[in-house]
Amino acid sequence: MTENAALEATMRRALELAANGPATGPNPRVGCVLLDESGQVLAEGWHRGAGTPHAEVDALARLTAGAARGATAVVTLEPCNHTGRTGPCSLALIEAGVTRVVYAVADPGIDSSGGADRLRRAGIDVAGGVLAGAGEAFLADWLVAARLGRPFVTLKWASSLDGRAAADDGTSRWITGPEARQDVHRRRAAAGAIIVGTGTVLADDPALTARDAAGKLLPTQPVPVVIGTRGVPADAALRSHPHPPLFFATDDLLAVLHDLHRRGIRHAFIEGGPTLASAFVAAGLVDEYLVYLAPTLLGGGRLALGDIGVAGISDQRRLAIDHYDRLGDDLLVVARPR
Amino acid sequence: MTENAALEATMRRALELAANGPATGPNPRVGCVLLDESGQVLAEGWHRGAGTPHAEVDALARLTAGAARGATAVVTLEPCNHTGRTGPCSLALIEAGVTRVVYAVADPGIDSSGGADRLRRAGIDVAGGVLAGAGEAFLADWLVAARLGRPFVTLKWASSLDGRAAADDGTSRWITGPEARQDVHRRRAAAGAIIVGTGTVLADDPALTARDAAGKLLPTQPVPVVIGTRGVPADAALRSHPHPPLFFATDDLLAVLHDLHRRGIRHAFIEGGPTLASAFVAAGLVDEYLVYLAPTLLGGGRLALGDIGVAGISDQRRLAIDHYDRLGDDLLVVARPR
Ligand SMILES: NC(=O)c1ccc[n+]([C@@H]2O[C@H](COP(=O)([O-])OP(=O)(O)OC[C@H]3O[C@@H](n4cnc5c(N)ncnc54)[C@H](OP(=O)(O)O)[C@@H]3O)[C@@H](O)[C@H]2O)c1
Ligand SMILES: NC(=O)c1ccc[n+]([C@@H]2O[C@H](COP(=O)([O-])OP(=O)(O)OC[C@H]3O[C@@H](n4cnc5c(N)ncnc54)[C@H](OP(=O)(O)O)[C@@H]3O)[C@@H](O)[C@H]2O)c1
Repeated sequence: MTENAALEATMRRALELAANGPATGPNPRVGCVLLDESGQVLAEGWHRGAGTPHAEVDALARLTAGAARGATAVVTLEPCNHTGRTGPCSLALIEAGVTRVVYAVADPGIDSSGGADRLRRAGIDVAGGVLAGAGEAFLADWLVAARLGRPFVTLKWASSLDGRAAADDGTSRWITGPEARQDVHRRRAAAGAIIVGTGTVLADDPALTARDAAGKLLPTQPVPVVIGTRGVPADAALRSHPHPPLFFATDDLLAVLHDLHRRGIRHAFIEGGPTLASAFVAAGLVDEYLVYLAPTLLGGGRLALGDIGVAGISDQRRLAIDHYDRLGDDLLVVARPR
Repeated sequence: MTENAALEATMRRALELAANGPATGPNPRVGCVLLDESGQVLAEGWHRGAGTPHAEVDALARLTAGAARGATAVVTLEPCNHTGRTGPCSLALIEAGVTRVVYAVADPGIDSSGGADRLRRAGIDVAGGVLAGAGEAFLADWLVAARLGRPFVTLKWASSLDGRAAADDGTSRWITGPEARQDVHRRRAAAGAIIVGTGTVLADDPALTARDAAGKLLPTQPVPVVIGTRGVPADAALRSHPHPPLFFATDDLLAVLHDLHRRGIRHAFIEGGPTLASAFVAAGLVDEYLVYLAPTLLGGGRLALGDIGVAGISDQRRLAIDHYDRLGDDLLVVARPR
């Protein structure tokens, strides 16, 4: 194995370690492998979420004092330069006597970036961009959030093949089948927040929880968020959600997203209805589309998406299909804006 | 090989032969294999379209007089009992001295059925239903047409992922990509007729021809059909179609289909627009749906399907998905009514 191939293999291992971390929460999932001068693994670490040691510190903590002297740190994300609830990782690596740092993805954070520079100034050999593609793909949602200062936004809707979210009289249970609905619940559980408009709350009184097929709550739950000026009844189901719901009496979607970001939410899952969904699309605030298409026709006026500000074909919103999934009888289209 | 397995293998060969016949036109595609008493192939035949010998007669014609005495005829469709442009096949088989007839699919024709009975009355050993599934699948469109006395109806539309056929200002070129458009042309070429409403003719002035990617006419062309009471301009492009267009100044879709059936058309391809498409769906006259979904969002009021007579979710028109195809960036959904 060449040295490059060996480093890439170690980076792959570091990405595996990173995946042990929690998918929701404000912090990125990061993994770290420490190698001695002969390329043997000294220690491994990963980040377990906000308030716990970063991956580099987690790995270093597994060694006795001095044991990391002369070591190479292979990290999935550029070591931070930021003193938050923990000290900067760049400093911890310097103090441990690490002589080389290899990372996949540069830290886009305004407060946290600069770690590579600080390491270089301390005389450490630093190389970024190793397995950058895999690293960026792994952190895609978090990177969008870090770059834009707002959560990564997933917009979900379910419709008939002809684009209707409900029959003309408003009835819609169920358009999609159990497999599609379970998929939605799994994805809810992986998001920091679930957002609906007052229209959906008043029409459907949804619980906005992530549940398994038997109706039992999944271990992680998104924070329920309601946007709109109309009041939500005191006995609304979402008020019994494990997380206290957040209410935003506004139509300023970006302001809501910024607020959620400040609260540590990095991934928001928009579940409609059509008015709110269309407003998110029109505002260009959607990073990922999940369209569940049921093999049925409804016709009529209850569209899954209304006016999205497209007048002519030249301003259509082209999407890039990520993939298609068959879920029972239904089709899930996962797409991103082009 | 057991005798049954041998007969099934021969039936598979007969289906292959049948596929040599023309896909459009009023007659079913039929294949025939003649076996001698030891199971050796004596002759093969297939039907080349209206006015030419049926498959059984085509096979018998390859033998010298008397050579089919004692033979087994393996035919994909029950031999006909009908004197049309050719004499009844059942009689030809009897006269040739065939002693056993094996077929896959019973003839649903009002005029042409009864062949099996006639053969039995002549003392011939007759067995139907051999590889019936494969035989019915192969003749699916033609069987629907024969049973209902109207063409098999394929409804095609192209829409954005949110169900729009055009942007709000009416512009729609192009929603789908070249692969999807070529697929439509190939399917047009395989249909007996292509049907549009006057709305589409007046808005788009379509040629209604089947063309290859370079714009060259494909070898077979569907008959262009326009339904609606409004007049079609004297210089409309479809008036230059290789087939003289048919105009039906009516809104009685079933009457049009019956008329087309009487003209020998067994497969009609409905290409819209939304008004006509919705009317066909509402009337329950669609046997197959081809929905080309482009990865784009349009919003607005130009829906691919309008009102289809569904008031509540309990009268939704559930479809059974036959398959999905990726065509370039687009998705083709092929479905049938449930
Ligand atoms: N098929 C699906 O996937 C799906 C998913 C969810 C819901 N639904 C259906 O959707 C229906 C409810 O539809 P809906 O459209 O009324 O509900 P909605 O989109 O959930 O709520 C609309 C409300 O959102 C608020 N809002 C906040 N910011 C806005 C902005 N920037 N632009 C526009 N509105 C904004 C407004 O509330 P205020 O007027 O209070 O200010 C508006 O009236 C229900 O029947 C439900 O069953 C379907
Ligand atoms: N995306 C696609 O796949 C696609 C395909 C084709 C067309 N288009 C678009 O569709 C638009 C035209 O739409 P359209 O809906 O006006 O056209 P259309 O459906 O082709 O024509 C509508 C006309 O069909 C006639 N008709 C006959 N029988 C009918 C019945 N049983 N019920 C209702 N109408 C019946 C009526 O004509 P009379 O009023 O003359 O009696 C009616 O006005 C164009 O802009 C075109 O570009 C899109």
